[in-house]
Amino acid sequence: MAKALPVSPLAPARFPELPVIDGVRFATVEAGVRYAGRTDVMLAHLAPGSTVAGVFTRSSTRSAPVLDCQAKIGQHDDAGAAILVNSGNANAFTGKRGVEAVTAVTTEVARVLGLPESRVFTSSTGVIGEVLPHDRITAKIGELSQKLDAGGIEAAARAIMTTDTFPKGAQTEVEIDGKTVRIAGIAKGSGMIAPDMATMLVYIFTDAAADREVLQSMVSALNDQTFNCITVDSDTSTSDSLLMAATGTSGVRIDETSVGFMEALRRVMLDLAHQVVRDGEGATKFVEIAVTGASSDADARTHAMAIANSPLVKTAIAGEDANWGRIVMAVGKSGAPADRDTLSIWFGDILVANKGWVNPDYREEDAAAYMKGQELCIAVDLGLGGGKAHVWTCDLTHGYIDINADYRS
Amino acid sequence: MAKALPVSPLAPARFPELPVIDGVRFATVEAGVRYAGRTDVMLAHLAPGSTVAGVFTRSSTRSAPVLDCQAKIGQHDDAGAAILVNSGNANAFTGKRGVEAVTAVTTEVARVLGLPESRVFTSSTGVIGEVLPHDRITAKIGELSQKLDAGGIEAAARAIMTTDTFPKGAQTEVEIDGKTVRIAGIAKGSGMIAPDMATMLVYIFTDAAADREVLQSMVSALNDQTFNCITVDSDTSTSDSLLMAATGTSGVRIDETSVGFMEALRRVMLDLAHQVVRDGEGATKFVEIAVTGASSDADARTHAMAIANSPLVKTAIAGEDANWGRIVMAVGKSGAPADRDTLSIWFGDILVANKGWVNPDYREEDAAAYMKGQELCIAVDLGLGGGKAHVWTCDLTHGYIDINADYRS
Repeated sequence: MAKALPVSPLAPARFPELPVIDGVRFATVEAGVRYAGRTDVMLAHLAPGSTVAGVFTRSSTRSAPVLDCQAKIGQHDDAGAAILVNSGNANAFTGKRGVEAVTAVTTEVARVLGLPESRVFTSSTGVIGEVLPHDRITAKIGELSQKLDAGGIEAAARAIMTTDTFPKGAQTEVEIDGKTVRIAGIAKGSGMIAPDMATMLVYIFTDAAADREVLQSMVSALNDQTFNCITVDSDTSTSDSLLMAATGTSGVRIDETSVGFMEALRRVMLDLAHQVVRDGEGATKFVEIAVTGASSDADARTHAMAIANSPLVKTAIAGEDANWGRIVMAVGKSGAPADRDTLSIWFGDILVANKGWVNPDYREEDAAAYMKGQELCIAVDLGLGGGKAHVWTCDLTHGYIDINADYRS
Repeated sequence: MAKALPVSPLAPARFPELPVIDGVRFATVEAGVRYAGRTDVMLAHLAPGSTVAGVFTRSSTRSAPVLDCQAKIGQHDDAGAAILVNSGNANAFTGKRGVEAVTAVTTEVARVLGLPESRVFTSSTGVIGEVLPHDRITAKIGELSQKLDAGGIEAAARAIMTTDTFPKGAQTEVEIDGKTVRIAGIAKGSGMIAPDMATMLVYIFTDAAADREVLQSMVSALNDQTFNCITVDSDTSTSDSLLMAATGTSGVRIDETSVGFMEALRRVMLDLAHQVVRDGEGATKFVEIAVTGASSDADARTHAMAIANSPLVKTAIAGEDANWGRIVMAVGKSGAPADRDTLSIWFGDILVANKGWVNPDYREEDAAAYMKGQELCIAVDLGLGGGKAHVWTCDLTHGYIDINADYRS
């Protein structure tokens, strides 16, 4: 399980320089939850006055930490807050003892940092069905509290990795009322999820000031355009969590009308979402699926996800095969309305199929050359209406089988 | 494309002895539609008085032959009927020229056999988006009509193969009113479908006499318990077709109350459905997913299909990994109601998880030993109600990637 995987060929060249977000400090530690010789717990402390919003997996078998976060996320308190994340054990499907472990950790963090327990959020990622050895974590809270550092975000990104082959970070700045507002985020995830080894966790911080309700509505709306538009293998974690905190230290207050901030946040979330796809298990191609001309945006998304999740489409991409017949198949099976005779398909700029039949000018060698690229776009126009959607995915390769058919150990 | 694949390790030892069904005759020929050196067209002639029923893919991008069959299937005529199937070209996504090809073939079959065109059904399976070279087929109809033979069903099963690694046949007999009624069927299919190379086609024949409506209602009902309960890769063909013909030559008339006949037909259909899974692309394990205790049968089926289609579950099975966490994940993501704390999971007879937590008596080495078998059953009880479902699938292996990531050529 701790076997080092080669870094994804789609990884960014380096971890980005992330700005300090005043009011957030990070610490990491080697707690030995499961892994040896690496950090596996990260603590983020949020200054008094910070607001916190979140979105979580809709799985009906959600983990104990997710249920605890969901119970707390709608509350507010000016006392500050903390986020504690461990890798190596997901604390999922652990019954009553899962709840006990969450309580033990949040109680100790609250005690050491002088916070109400309702302001301590946790995530766990790693093997499922095993009781979280929470003593190993609580024993380190004092040490973590001593090490809190405003510059520790990259180390935090590394401590939350499981089968990720690179740490994931993104940032941006936006000018509002003549002042600079900063946003920085980290994420982990490599299968859309392999519940014994992976999951998608995202933590985003800004020095803007925002009411909890404003922050929540922005994050929920943008999540539907970013993290809910990626798929590696169609599987969904029991632990997926996104937490966003606004410390207010920039002195700039945002509200529902702050379109500049919202666009900046969207860029950060999309960047992190794309990085999760780029670290998709076994991925060798980063693929955008763009669907237009559907009867509605929802129908467009249904078609786009049917294409992105089709094993036959994903293996064709792995084989650099411009197999547009499989696109036709995926559209046909999606369940959303489609008309064979108004359907057009492009690989990049190459029009392959035009209104229900192969484009007479289409030359297979052109598409074959295009498919050798590492960044691909497959576009489909349904010819029915104005509905559109974008989703992002990767190919399905021998690497995916290697990673996921290996025995847990 | 014509590259020989090794025979599936899950294949039956041999093609079964299929009985002659009086009133049905078969012929096959090498027409060179796409493949060289093998038969690729089969013709079945049905005696006057035969009734025909059918079920077809629900894909919204259905092929021209499917649309033609659907238009004809509700009619009846005592003149007899014919089924003509070619492999090598699916005649799908071929626009108006697809319709012209179907018309050319059905017109010629009708002329040579002296049938109304409305009684000639066709299926095509193979590459999509290429115009069917129908002249190569129509040139052979005369020869086919000369070769019609009551004993030709096994040759017919071979002529319709594409990426199948073995021909598929099943049969049974049932005593009704002191007389023997025979049922024999053939099928092809190996991916749930790869539209450029595969698809699922099924042809079943009986010497019972049956009104068209009776036959149709039986086939539709049993299809939901058999062919609609298998999945190789969640992908759905543009061409899937099942045709059933009753010649009436046994002199035994069946109706809605003929439970013995219906059970016999169910066995034949399930046998053929299982053979399609056993020839699943790259399959090394045959897996039954049994879900009980769901809120309804429909919910049970949703859970069972979520498990059967999960790439993470399928790769774990390929790796002989009793990874029950992935079963929890698949149930959680299915969208049907589930309660983590009433969920139990078995691998074979081994109780792995009991009401939301790992069974304290569970020993991983027992499950690991079980997973080495070639025929597996994964059972899930939701603990919510009386809903239940069975589906059948196979594992996801390097072989699937090999077959489907290869370039079409």
